[in-house]
Order: sequence, then structure tokens, then C-alpha cells
Amino acid sequence: MLKVDAKPTGNNKARACTITTAHGEIQTPIFMPVGTRATVKCMWQEQLEEIGSQIILGNTYHLYLRPGHELIEKVGGGLHGFMNWDKPILTDSGGYQVFSLSDMNKVTEEGVIFQSHLDGSRHLIGPEKSMEIQKGLGSDIVMVFDECPALPATKDTLRESMELTLRWAQRCKDYGLRDYQKLFGIVQGGLHHDLRTECMERLEEIDFPGLALGGLSVGEKNDEMVDFLNNFVHTMPEQKPRYLMGVGKPLDILKGIKAGLDMFDCVLPTRNARNGQFLTHDGPLNIKNLKFREDTGPADPSCECKVCTTYSRAYIRHLYTTGEYLAGQLISYHNLHFMIKMTQDAREAIINGTFDDYYETFYKRYESKKWTSK
Amino acid sequence: MLKVDAKPTGNNKARACTITTAHGEIQTPIFMPVGTRATVKCMWQEQLEEIGSQIILGNTYHLYLRPGHELIEKVGGGLHGFMNWDKPILTDSGGYQVFSLSDMNKVTEEGVIFQSHLDGSRHLIGPEKSMEIQKGLGSDIVMVFDECPALPATKDTLRESMELTLRWAQRCKDYGLRDYQKLFGIVQGGLHHDLRTECMERLEEIDFPGLALGGLSVGEKNDEMVDFLNNFVHTMPEQKPRYLMGVGKPLDILKGIKAGLDMFDCVLPTRNARNGQFLTHDGPLNIKNLKFREDTGPADPSCECKVCTTYSRAYIRHLYTTGEYLAGQLISYHNLHFMIKMTQDAREAIINGTFDDYYETFYKRYESKKWTSK
Repeated sequence: MLKVDAKPTGNNKARACTITTAHGEIQTPIFMPVGTRATVKCMWQEQLEEIGSQIILGNTYHLYLRPGHELIEKVGGGLHGFMNWDKPILTDSGGYQVFSLSDMNKVTEEGVIFQSHLDGSRHLIGPEKSMEIQKGLGSDIVMVFDECPALPATKDTLRESMELTLRWAQRCKDYGLRDYQKLFGIVQGGLHHDLRTECMERLEEIDFPGLALGGLSVGEKNDEMVDFLNNFVHTMPEQKPRYLMGVGKPLDILKGIKAGLDMFDCVLPTRNARNGQFLTHDGPLNIKNLKFREDTGPADPSCECKVCTTYSRAYIRHLYTTGEYLAGQLISYHNLHFMIKMTQDAREAIINGTFDDYYETFYKRYESKKWTSK
Repeated sequence: MLKVDAKPTGNNKARACTITTAHGEIQTPIFMPVGTRATVKCMWQEQLEEIGSQIILGNTYHLYLRPGHELIEKVGGGLHGFMNWDKPILTDSGGYQVFSLSDMNKVTEEGVIFQSHLDGSRHLIGPEKSMEIQKGLGSDIVMVFDECPALPATKDTLRESMELTLRWAQRCKDYGLRDYQKLFGIVQGGLHHDLRTECMERLEEIDFPGLALGGLSVGEKNDEMVDFLNNFVHTMPEQKPRYLMGVGKPLDILKGIKAGLDMFDCVLPTRNARNGQFLTHDGPLNIKNLKFREDTGPADPSCECKVCTTYSRAYIRHLYTTGEYLAGQLISYHNLHFMIKMTQDAREAIINGTFDDYYETFYKRYESKKWTSK
């Protein structure tokens, strides 16, 4: 499902690929907007297309609870039809949410027993249930159901968790998905290179068409994560997509690209938008700041999106401080555009053999101004 | 500023006109979306254009308190530039909000002393202040500052209020607005035909380029309002725009058109949208209703807007019941499209001499189904 368009050159491991799915091609590196409950918050589907979204995410845990995968399959034949999105969709396994959002989760060999964060109702999601839900959702890329151990954890705990994750991965593989669905394995093992390598090799024995890195950006130091990525990612199979789950900030994604990763997702651009934060080439900009009260300039002067070419900081600050819906809509649009454009520009630079320059220039400028602290 | 495109024919007083303003022409009958705080809630400005909005409203009271008319003038040269809307804008006088929203209002000859609903700060808005604010906002159509007496009220109270409104109207007229701004008078007088007539005649002596009807749909029975409109509107000057302020439901607007009114505004389409109510040709439809859970049809099968041609009731119900922003965005879009399309269709029927048919057909179908009560 993967074609390498440009291999690493210079002082980096960055690569550009084309991934083929049943609903179209994805050109990497790619940022994938998160549509938790069959909607990327505040965004019309046509606006997602407008900013160049090639693939979006759906959340198994949330969609299972509401409105339920049976309803989505019955009404829309799956998530594509239900939400009217005909480009690729990736669904997570629900694992992360079961551990982080629900109450009273209990891990057994069968799966995770938890209480819904909505009404306290009791549920079990294990490998088979996660596959059943994702089959109903009809996503193009399906994630295996994995355990997400709380960090910090001892190596023994991490190994135990990894063993469980591997047994579950096999059960996911054995479940029959729709013909066109591609199941990705998830490499766990904390920051232990040996555990990660073992996990990856054993996932390779099961043989998945793509591999993800889970359990990162969950409490460890940023440097530790980046070091790990730099040492590990290039050892992953070249002919398979490499997906860094749930990370993260613009510079983290740029570092991930540099380390050789292809796919990224995070709620940061939309969540921070609703808190008034613009992602700009000069770093994060908090629109609430009083100094923007009379500022007639665009949020990000280097951005060509229709928010930055149309509206002033003063206007958007007014919308945000008065609690107007349009603030979240405009900032979400810009932030997603920003992330997607960053990955598109990175791809172009990789293909042109200028990624090191792109990285340095972007990084320095992004770090040079500290809007929010002024 | 007004050209009559089609005079009444048949069993109605409906007319079609073209109103000229500094920012373009308005073809009537027209529904004007309300952009209280420099934004029509949940709507991008380009989406307002997409659905055919020819003119929008701004609220003097709200914009005076936040962000202030000085800021709007400084940053954007007025409301058009501030919010990036280059078609016509009408601003209300702030009178209605001062009476309905603020605390401890006290009416004096000079104006109304009130406490802000936001922070309790004390303010006075009178005719001159209202003109100063609207001049700063730079709207195309400016409304005189009037008193809005609480109903029910005795005829003596209404007369006293009318006299004050007339003295204030003269002071508004005497204030120097921007050259291009058109100041509309407001006819008050409750449901008393004689008071309304006197008020109108005395406003005509002052000579405003347009006239509005205020103080309707504020507690009286619907039949009483409609009877009043049928008896009164056709006596208004033919060569001036006739604006029914803040009314209302689709059928009320249709009745207003039938009585000979040109311009309408109301928050109902956007406010009710955020409460899950679709306006449809078959009457209001509450998307929360369980029976829409698996409904693959469009909200309004007779609507050609991009919400109805794209999304199912089941999907929008899911968005609404899970509290997703997109629900309010989609329903607001449809509802405003619905109101504007209704007035466009009415105009076409008036010009074709078929308004009586249009009215009967629309009315009967709208009343025939009671979605919400099922």
C-alpha cells in the first residue's frame, strides 16, 4: 500500500511516500485532523477538503458509545456515508480512550471492562469488539486494540503490557475485517529500544500492512521522545507506513518527519483553537492577549489561508472574548490549515532534497518569538 | 432610495422593491440575518453571501459595550471593514436592548440610563449617543433611538411614549451622520391605529428616507398584530422602505409581506438552530426527536441548500445530541437559507402576479404537519 516517492537525503531520515487506500491516495508526510465524533470540531467537511485534508480520524470509543457503530453502518453504510466524507478515514482502536476517559477500567485477557464516561454503563472492549466496531465504521485504516500502560512504569510492567498487546494484535489480525480495510499494528515498549524492537519484530511476524508508534508523548521528557524517534524510526520496515499516534505540537511533528515518520494526528490544532490559540510561523499566538485589541494585521502574516487573508487579529480577538462561535470556527480552520501546509511544505522540501534547510528555518522562526509570554 | 418593481395585485398588498444603499442594492421583500456582535452566530461571512444575504444587522447596544464603536471605527473604519462584510448593513438604535437586557434602566428626556448586563457599569444612551455609535459603525441604514414601552400599557402611556419617541426622532435627525447613511424613523403606538397614524404623519413631517414599525410581536395576540398590519401598512408612504422590526416566525413574515412590508429581521432562525430546530416547508422540525435517529432523509426534502443536499437527519441528530458545534453551524445555515429563499420566492411570485397562490400553498403546507408534537 506504500510507494516511497523520495528517500532521505542530507542530515535527516525524512521521506516522502504515497499510501494507497480504498478511498484514495495519501501523500506523506501527512497531518490527519481528528474527527472524534464523526465531525472535526467546528469544521464543515467541505472546509476540510478546502484546506487539503487527505485523511481524517474517527474515534472508536466515542462512536461506539454514541451513536453506536450499528447505527452508523445502518444509516450510512459506515462512517464515510454517515458523515459524508469520501476520502480516507483512519479509526483508532478505542484503547487509549478506554484507559484515559472511562471510569473503573479493569484489564483482563479478554479485554478492558470499563464504565462509560457518559452514563456509567458497563462495557467490555477487547480485540474482537474493537474490530467489530471498526468494521462497522468501515474505516480505510484500522488500528489494533492495544494496552496503554500508565507511565512511569517499570520495564517488567511494560514487557507484560507488550506481551498482552501482542496477543491482542494476533486476535485483531484473526478477525475478519472488510476486504478493503488495512489493519495497522502498534509498537509499544516505552522508551526501551530493546522492547520496542522486539515488539516490532513480533508484529512483523504477524504481518501488518502498516505500523504505528503508541505510548509516546504521555509523560516522558520531550528530548527523550525525540532521541528515541531518531534512533528507532529508521529501523522500521521501509515498505510500510509509519504512524506516530497522537503527537503533537508543530515542532514535534517536524522532528517526527525528520526521524522518518509518515503520518501524524493530534487534537491540538482544534482544541487549542477553541481556547484562542493560533499556531503561527512565529509560534503559538494567544488571541485573547490585550495587545491584539487594535491589531489590524492577520493572525499569521506568513499564512495564505482565508482566515489570515480576510480577518484581523482585532476582529478575531473580539469574537473570542465575547464568546462567539465564529472564533473557534476561524481559528480551527487556520490551525488545521497550518498543520497540513507544514507537512505539505515538508514533503516538497524532502522531494527537492532541501529538508534540512526547511527544518532549520521553520524551527528557528517558530522558536524565536514568545507571543504568549509577552 | 426606493424603486417599486411590482405593485400589489390580487387579494393582497404585497410589493417588490429595490432599495439602494452605499454598499449596494437590496431587493425586497428581504429577510436580514442578525449579526448581533459583528457576527451572525455560527456563520462565516462567505456563507452568508452564499445563501444570498443582501444585508445584515448589527446591534448598537452590544457593539457599544464590546468592543466599542471607537475600536470598530479605528480598526475597520466601521463595521463593514471590521467584520469584512462589504454589502449593506443596518444597525438598530440600541433602544430595544437597553429596555430588555440591561438592569435598572431609567428613562429621562435626555435618554436612558442603564447598567450594562455584562458588568453593571452605568451608561446613558440617548438619541445623540445612539447616532454617535451608529455613525462610528458606519452602517448604511441607521435607526432612530426610540422608547419601547412595556406592554400591556394604557393608551395614555403609549401616547406619552410616542411623544418622547418623536422628540428623540427629531434629535436623531438633527445629528450629523456620515453622508451615505440613511436614517429610518420608527412608528410606535401599540395596536392603536390612530396613534400609529399620528406618529407616522409626524415622522413624515421630520422626513426620514424609510419607516419602520416597532413595538410589535411583544406580547399582543398574533391575530391582533396581523389585523393591524393589514389595516395599517398600505397607508404608509409608497415611495419609502417599510421595515417590520424583529418579527419573526416564517408565517408572520409571509403575512407581513402580504400586508405590504419590505424588510424583516429576527434572531429566530439562528437562535432556534442552536436549540436544534430546523425551519422546513412542513413546519418546524426538532432534530432531537428520537424518530429521526435512523432517518436517512434530508432535514427539509424541498430544500436545495447544501445542508439538505448533503447531510441526513440521523447525522445531524447525532451531532446535536452529542453537543457538537457543527450541529448549530449546519442548522443555522439551513434556517437562514430557508428564510431568505422564502422571501426570494415571494418576490418572484409578486413580480409574476402569483403571490396569492404562493401564500396559500406555503401557508397550508407549513401548517399541515406538526413535527414537534408527534
